[in-house]
Amino acid sequence: MYNSKILFNFVKALFIKTGCNEEDAATIAEVLLAAELRGIESHGMLRIPDYYNLWKTKRINTSPNIKIVHETPSTAVIDGDSAFGMITGKKAMQLAIDKAKAVGSGWVSTRNSNHYGIAGYYAMMALQHDMIGISMTNANPLVAPTFSVDRMLGTNPIAVAVPADKQPAFVADFATTPIARGKLDLMHKKGLTAPLGYVQDKFGNPSTDPNILTQGGAILPLGGDREHGSHKGYCLGSIVDILSAVLSGAGFGPFVPPSVAFLPVLQNDDAKGTGHFFGAMRIDAFRPATEFKAAMDKWIETFRNSKPAEGQEKVLIPGDPEREMEVIRRKEGIPIMPALVDKVNEIAMELGIERL
Amino acid sequence: MYNSKILFNFVKALFIKTGCNEEDAATIAEVLLAAELRGIESHGMLRIPDYYNLWKTKRINTSPNIKIVHETPSTAVIDGDSAFGMITGKKAMQLAIDKAKAVGSGWVSTRNSNHYGIAGYYAMMALQHDMIGISMTNANPLVAPTFSVDRMLGTNPIAVAVPADKQPAFVADFATTPIARGKLDLMHKKGLTAPLGYVQDKFGNPSTDPNILTQGGAILPLGGDREHGSHKGYCLGSIVDILSAVLSGAGFGPFVPPSVAFLPVLQNDDAKGTGHFFGAMRIDAFRPATEFKAAMDKWIETFRNSKPAEGQEKVLIPGDPEREMEVIRRKEGIPIMPALVDKVNEIAMELGIERL
Repeated sequence: MYNSKILFNFVKALFIKTGCNEEDAATIAEVLLAAELRGIESHGMLRIPDYYNLWKTKRINTSPNIKIVHETPSTAVIDGDSAFGMITGKKAMQLAIDKAKAVGSGWVSTRNSNHYGIAGYYAMMALQHDMIGISMTNANPLVAPTFSVDRMLGTNPIAVAVPADKQPAFVADFATTPIARGKLDLMHKKGLTAPLGYVQDKFGNPSTDPNILTQGGAILPLGGDREHGSHKGYCLGSIVDILSAVLSGAGFGPFVPPSVAFLPVLQNDDAKGTGHFFGAMRIDAFRPATEFKAAMDKWIETFRNSKPAEGQEKVLIPGDPEREMEVIRRKEGIPIMPALVDKVNEIAMELGIERL
Repeated sequence: MYNSKILFNFVKALFIKTGCNEEDAATIAEVLLAAELRGIESHGMLRIPDYYNLWKTKRINTSPNIKIVHETPSTAVIDGDSAFGMITGKKAMQLAIDKAKAVGSGWVSTRNSNHYGIAGYYAMMALQHDMIGISMTNANPLVAPTFSVDRMLGTNPIAVAVPADKQPAFVADFATTPIARGKLDLMHKKGLTAPLGYVQDKFGNPSTDPNILTQGGAILPLGGDREHGSHKGYCLGSIVDILSAVLSGAGFGPFVPPSVAFLPVLQNDDAKGTGHFFGAMRIDAFRPATEFKAAMDKWIETFRNSKPAEGQEKVLIPGDPEREMEVIRRKEGIPIMPALVDKVNEIAMELGIERL
C-alpha cells in the first residue's frame, strides 16, 4: 500500500525530469492520483510507461505554447501544441468554466493533445463552481463499428458531473464500449479471460482473449451486437470523436495518434493529435442554484432508495463506488501491482530520481 | 400504402379538431410524418391514440402560453404550459438555434411538456443553419437502473445531427436502452417474442415477453447486464433525465407523467410535466464552416469505407438507414398497419373529420 502523497510526489518528480515545469508536473500527478484514489487503476500509474514512451519518442512537447485558435463568447478551439493531455485538458476545461461564468455555458474542443487520463477529472472541475461539467476524448483506434472489422474508434469515454447539495455529486465517467481498454490490459496482466461480448478477433468472430487487440482484434461498441444496440454504442463513440476531433481539427477515428506501443504511428500524417471536448453549464443559468441542488438531492435520494433486485445489496448512483473507494484509499493507501512498481522504478532510474 | 401528403393532411385536420391552431397542428403532423418517412413507425401514427387519450383526459393544453422562464445569453428554461410536446420542442430548439447565432451555442431545458415524437426531428432543425443539433427527452418511467427492479427512467433518447458538405448529414437518434418502448409495442402487436437482454420481469428475472411492461416488468439499460455495461446505459439515461428535468424543474425519473394508458397518473404530483433538453452549436464557432464540412465529409467517407465483417454488406453511418427509407417512402408511400388505420379512423369519427 502506498500513501497517495508519496505517489503524488514520485509522479511529479518523474514528470519534472521529462522537462515539465512544477505546475504541469503537479497537474499530471494530480490527474493520475485522482484515478488511483477513485479505484480506476487502469488510468492511474499504469499509464506512466505509455506516457514515458511517448515522451522518449519525442511525441510530447513539455514546454508547450497552448493557445486559443478560435473562439466565440460560449465556444473555443484550443491547440495543445503536443502537450501531455492533462495539461491541455485542464486549461481547456478552465476556459469552458470561464465562458460559462460569462454567458451561461462554455464549450471547448481541443487538438494536438494526448491521452488525458480519466475523463471524470475535468468534468469534476466544474462542481466547485456550481456548474455541470462535461468531458470526453477520442483515443487509440481499437473499436470496430457495428458490422465492421476495421478499428475505427477509441473507447471514447464521456464524463458528466452534476453538483448536489447535501448529497455527494453525481459523477458518471464511462467508456462508450462494454469495457475500457485499460481494463482489458489489466485482465491480460492478471491472466484472466474476457467475457463474451467485449471483443472480436480480426475476422469479426467473438473472442474471449483480453490480448486480442495486439493481434488485430477489436473492442465492440457498448451494446455488444446489433440486436442488443451496438449501433447505439457506435453512435456514442462517433459523437465523441466528432466533437473532440472534427470540431477542433484533431486526428479523428483511425487517425488518432496511438499512445500504445503495439499500434504503429502513422507516417506522413496531417492529423493534429488527440482531440478532447469539454463543456460547462452554470446551474443558475437555468434555475436558482439552491433550487437546482435541492432537486438534485431529491433525484439522488429517489434513485438510491429504489428497490434492489433479489441478491443485490443496493442501487448505486453514478460516482458512488469511486467516492467510497476514495475514502478507503485515503485512509489505507493505494495498492500498486509489484510488476508496475518495478516498471516505474526502471523509469525512475533512467531519469535519475529516487525509486518508489 | 399511403401518400405522405395525405397522411400529413389527415393528422393536421385531426389535431386542429383538438383545438390546435393551424401552425401547431402542422408541426405535430410534420414531426409524426418525419418519423413515418424515416421508417421509425414506433414514433409515427402509432402514437396518435396515446396523444388523443392525453387530450381527452384534459392533460394537454391546445392554447398554450409557452414562455421563457429563465435565461442567459447561451441558455434558457422554457415552460411548455402543457402543450403537445412537438409544440414546446420546436419552439425550444428554435430558441437554442437563435442563441447559437448570437453567442456560438444555445442550450434550452424545458418543463411542462409532453411526449415529443422523434428526438431526431429537433436535432435536424440545426442542420440548415450549419449547426450541430442536439435533442433529448425523458419519458414514461419503464427502465430499471442496474441492480434495481423499480422503473425509474424512460428510454430517454439522445439525438445528434452534424452537417456535412457533399455527404448527407450524420444523424444519430437512439434510445439509451437496447430497444425503444414503441418497438416492444410493435413486437407485441405483431405477436413476436423479444430477444433476451431487452426486458426483465417484476422480480428482475430475464424475460422475452414484449408485453411484460404491462405486468410490472422493466426495460434494461443499454448494455443489458452489469458485466456488459448496463451501468453505462443507466448513466446515459440518468444524464438525459437530469438535463431534461432537474435543470428545468420538470418531472424527473419516476415522476414523468405517463403518456401510456397502462401507467397510472400520479395524484397530488407537484412535478411539472415531461422535460426535454436541446442544444445547438454553430460549427463556425469552432472552425470555418467550409473547413468543418469538408472534414466531416472525410469522416463519413472514412467510416463508410471501413471493411465489413464477413456476411455484412456494408458499414453504415448513423442516419443512413433512415435516409434511404425516406427516399423509398416518398416514392412508394408509407405502409400503415390495418389495425392502426382502424384505430385512427375511430378517432376521426369521434372528432368528425374525414376518415383516412
